[in-house]
Amino acid sequence: MNGEFSEEEKNGFYKAIFSRRDVRAHFTAEPIDDRTLSKILNAAHHAPSVGFSQPWNFILIKDIEARKKIKSSFDAERKRSSELVEDPKRTKYLSFKLEGILDSAVNICVTYDPSKFGPFVIGKSSIPETGIYSVCCAIQNLWLAARAEGIGMGWVSILSNDDLKKVLEIPEHVIPVAYLCLGYVSEFAQKPDLETSGWLSRLDLKDVVFYEKWNKNNDPSWQTIHQMIVSNLDYA
Amino acid sequence: MNGEFSEEEKNGFYKAIFSRRDVRAHFTAEPIDDRTLSKILNAAHHAPSVGFSQPWNFILIKDIEARKKIKSSFDAERKRSSELVEDPKRTKYLSFKLEGILDSAVNICVTYDPSKFGPFVIGKSSIPETGIYSVCCAIQNLWLAARAEGIGMGWVSILSNDDLKKVLEIPEHVIPVAYLCLGYVSEFAQKPDLETSGWLSRLDLKDVVFYEKWNKNNDPSWQTIHQMIVSNLDYA
Repeated sequence: MNGEFSEEEKNGFYKAIFSRRDVRAHFTAEPIDDRTLSKILNAAHHAPSVGFSQPWNFILIKDIEARKKIKSSFDAERKRSSELVEDPKRTKYLSFKLEGILDSAVNICVTYDPSKFGPFVIGKSSIPETGIYSVCCAIQNLWLAARAEGIGMGWVSILSNDDLKKVLEIPEHVIPVAYLCLGYVSEFAQKPDLETSGWLSRLDLKDVVFYEKWNKNNDPSWQTIHQMIVSNLDYA
Repeated sequence: MNGEFSEEEKNGFYKAIFSRRDVRAHFTAEPIDDRTLSKILNAAHHAPSVGFSQPWNFILIKDIEARKKIKSSFDAERKRSSELVEDPKRTKYLSFKLEGILDSAVNICVTYDPSKFGPFVIGKSSIPETGIYSVCCAIQNLWLAARAEGIGMGWVSILSNDDLKKVLEIPEHVIPVAYLCLGYVSEFAQKPDLETSGWLSRLDLKDVVFYEKWNKNNDPSWQTIHQMIVSNLDYA
């Protein structure tokens, strides 16, 4: 079979998967060089897309005035959402640093254009949401490529999409999918911040895998893998 | 900075990104060993998720009767969607092999459970769709890990989610996000099938990157990267 991976190549791949973090702090002032940024964008552009529709766009943002407006949107939404939860969770929530809009080198807004190569896109007529799912795959490629290049990335989802569309002049039919902050960092955390702070724990793999049907935790034809997952072998 | 990547590790990472394919043919009869499947699932489970909510489940499917029912759903949806397009596109569309439901080793249905760790999930109250976006990131991790392990994967989106929910006994509030077919393959295609067949071309990177605002193809503060992208340097 063509394209086998050497052990070291596999290690490099899994290193990106397991050491990728959602980064909100530790950004340094170092700018991202253009070649590295191009590589990361190119990795995103090579994501899978339904019917090869490539329905993504990447808006690169450095302008400080635009970023300040988006930071205001974050502040308003953070306050609003904090009112949905009671203390002591509220105080804990408000203590987290949840964005790096102004302190990262570059912001990127990733958008979904449902009209691209339409109206007939192969594979999109039964489940139209597959268009936006493709954009998410591109975002994950971008995130992992950033990590491989030593660049931290954080996804800011405490935002108003209406504000984003206004500031970035995004047309009515286009959907902002993600607002990302990228920059070199002084360190990558060993674990997700929300795990370290005790907000939530990582689930065991066995808790998210079912066999043959929803909620079926065991099955005769899946005994070996079930044992392997339950005993928590080091399959990483 | 901790966790720098060696050149070979980076190469391994980018190899997965650029050689990953949406696979519908070339599946061999070789079963996927349990350890490898566990590794792939574990990579998926280490995707980012909004508020660390880990809202995904993976239903592993080998049962042939269930797969036949899902294949019937594909057949019906394929016929239905072919009626949305005129000849010569219709004939071309119907000539494509678009699924490997019965000829792959394992099928995996990836689902989204919006209730997990709710109702208050950090970062999900402004844009609730970020829950399903997290599941898509997990799918992309799974896809890339499969590729690194020499396993082909195809995403079948010509399906009725109602049929899927019925066959797999998925509860009302849970959303099937992807139906995936995985197996070892005799080869990975050099390019996407829809590119090779002339259905669509890959866009240039310059066509999907904007600067500061939607649709702005150039900007004084982005001159260097713009030139680099336009001249199509080998940044891969």
